[in-house]
Amino acid sequence: MGNSERLEGEASIIAEFFAPLTDGDPGAAGLVDDCAVLTLAPATDLVVTTDSLVEGVHFLPGDIPSFKALAVNVSDLIAKGATPERYLLNLALPEPPTRAFMTRLAEGLAEAQQTFGCHLIGGDTDRTPGPFTLTITAIGSLPAGSVVRRTTARPGDIIAVTGTIGDAGLGLALRKDPKSGRQAGLSADYAAFLISRFEKPVPRLAAAALVRDFATAAMDVSDGLAKDLARMASASGTGANIQIEKVPLSDGARIMCSQGFVRREDLIASGEDYEVLFTLSTDRWPAFQSVASTTGVPVTALGTMTQDDGVSWRDSYGGAMPLTTGGWDHF
Amino acid sequence: MGNSERLEGEASIIAEFFAPLTDGDPGAAGLVDDCAVLTLAPATDLVVTTDSLVEGVHFLPGDIPSFKALAVNVSDLIAKGATPERYLLNLALPEPPTRAFMTRLAEGLAEAQQTFGCHLIGGDTDRTPGPFTLTITAIGSLPAGSVVRRTTARPGDIIAVTGTIGDAGLGLALRKDPKSGRQAGLSADYAAFLISRFEKPVPRLAAAALVRDFATAAMDVSDGLAKDLARMASASGTGANIQIEKVPLSDGARIMCSQGFVRREDLIASGEDYEVLFTLSTDRWPAFQSVASTTGVPVTALGTMTQDDGVSWRDSYGGAMPLTTGGWDHF
Repeated sequence: MGNSERLEGEASIIAEFFAPLTDGDPGAAGLVDDCAVLTLAPATDLVVTTDSLVEGVHFLPGDIPSFKALAVNVSDLIAKGATPERYLLNLALPEPPTRAFMTRLAEGLAEAQQTFGCHLIGGDTDRTPGPFTLTITAIGSLPAGSVVRRTTARPGDIIAVTGTIGDAGLGLALRKDPKSGRQAGLSADYAAFLISRFEKPVPRLAAAALVRDFATAAMDVSDGLAKDLARMASASGTGANIQIEKVPLSDGARIMCSQGFVRREDLIASGEDYEVLFTLSTDRWPAFQSVASTTGVPVTALGTMTQDDGVSWRDSYGGAMPLTTGGWDHF
Repeated sequence: MGNSERLEGEASIIAEFFAPLTDGDPGAAGLVDDCAVLTLAPATDLVVTTDSLVEGVHFLPGDIPSFKALAVNVSDLIAKGATPERYLLNLALPEPPTRAFMTRLAEGLAEAQQTFGCHLIGGDTDRTPGPFTLTITAIGSLPAGSVVRRTTARPGDIIAVTGTIGDAGLGLALRKDPKSGRQAGLSADYAAFLISRFEKPVPRLAAAALVRDFATAAMDVSDGLAKDLARMASASGTGANIQIEKVPLSDGARIMCSQGFVRREDLIASGEDYEVLFTLSTDRWPAFQSVASTTGVPVTALGTMTQDDGVSWRDSYGGAMPLTTGGWDHF
């Protein structure tokens, strides 16, 4: 039977492609039952999150972003200080899938769950007259009472972010218009890096413990740094003072900026970074930097939470720099 | 602002329509964070299930089946012996919703969660170029180690089912062709009952404890009794011997059968009953019946699990009755 064969029967699709992803967890019962069971360690809280990816809305037609679907949910868990453990998958398909399609989809999940240390415990597979849609519900755990919310930043706290900002937005732009990279003199390696940041984001697992141990507030950066920082400030009842020059950029992003293909203020609005935005006390910053460097998580301080309302972005001379581009909103 | 106004902004939709459904659970944090936190009672296992309803596939165009979306997931929990506690909602909408649409959707959820004793803790709202889709992930709990699987029925066990079978299938038929009910001499009350079994199924909460205390195996009846029984027998490595005359029918379903509008064998294939199919030891049947009658859960014995392979449906003379209609399968 060839790779283009259309597969018949929900049960056989589950048995062949999804049951192996349960890693033998008895709570998943080989996916032959309708429910999964979770037995929990004492003094542990569960953290649950869910996100859908819709073809043509969240990913380019023809892509099979199963790795990314798990990654974006793991990103939410990590930003709360939680360790990913298990996930459920709802799959909506416009037609019976081919073997080649299911193989790629399962391979992406297998790689992602190995990368993030979690496994499949359940889900649902449906036909839809609409687009291919992947919904993941991810479950993590953390010591009871240690969750870190976005609502608890305080005036005076340092604002920091992991990794670099804007790579995924540039990666998407390069997917849509590959020649723009060559016009900017971007090497093939840098272009591949930016595209991989869009297609296959890898949230920083080691950041979960840093968040729990140091952060006063935290969230992942998924809809653009500018928009997500404004949300954190608003949810915390603070303002924020940020120097745009401090926003960390990758070498590839720097080249695209310096060649005039994108502005720094576009990058902070571009979304899908899947880095952690967090705040912490100024007096804990030295200890934090020392621990972060041993864990290999790159971190950059961007500015300070304030008593004022709203987020003030500053240029390198300290002048106010009103933003002209927003972040992602569905409605 | 009128009811036909299109609502703008995911955050304001969440704050107005969904945050009140969290019932003040601090773990839901008013839905302003990306994750929910669950703190668990000791010696408790969690049970998790997820199901999507897609417009035009699982429900009629124009319907807003938010009550049903929660009910079908609660049905899975109850059939495992679990008590519903919390749920997440993924909503995919083809256009910005009107206030009237969101109001009806939230009212359906509010009524369902009050009926089932659970509340919203999180979710995701997305635009889609496809149909309106509701995905619920429901979380229940039960005493540690007490989950009841579909895989553990034994030869000799009695096969039983709660409630009546085939009503929802008839309700769907009446929605599509209202005059068929009048032609069969069905009263308006019976027609309304059958339609409500399709539109607003109410899984029997009291069955959860019965399942835990008595059942050797259990699952909900969602894709047709015939198909679901075959699945249970196959998963348990048993066969089954069933008398079709014993399948419990409501008065409305009896009228539709007696007038020749449907056959009993169509009803056992018609799906969406959301009753509990379960097995138990013959020696526990008297004690079970006595407890079931005090809890008000109607139960009917249908037949017996066997050592053979496959399910044998028998007519009232004991003759073999091969089924000609299957149950629901997406692929």
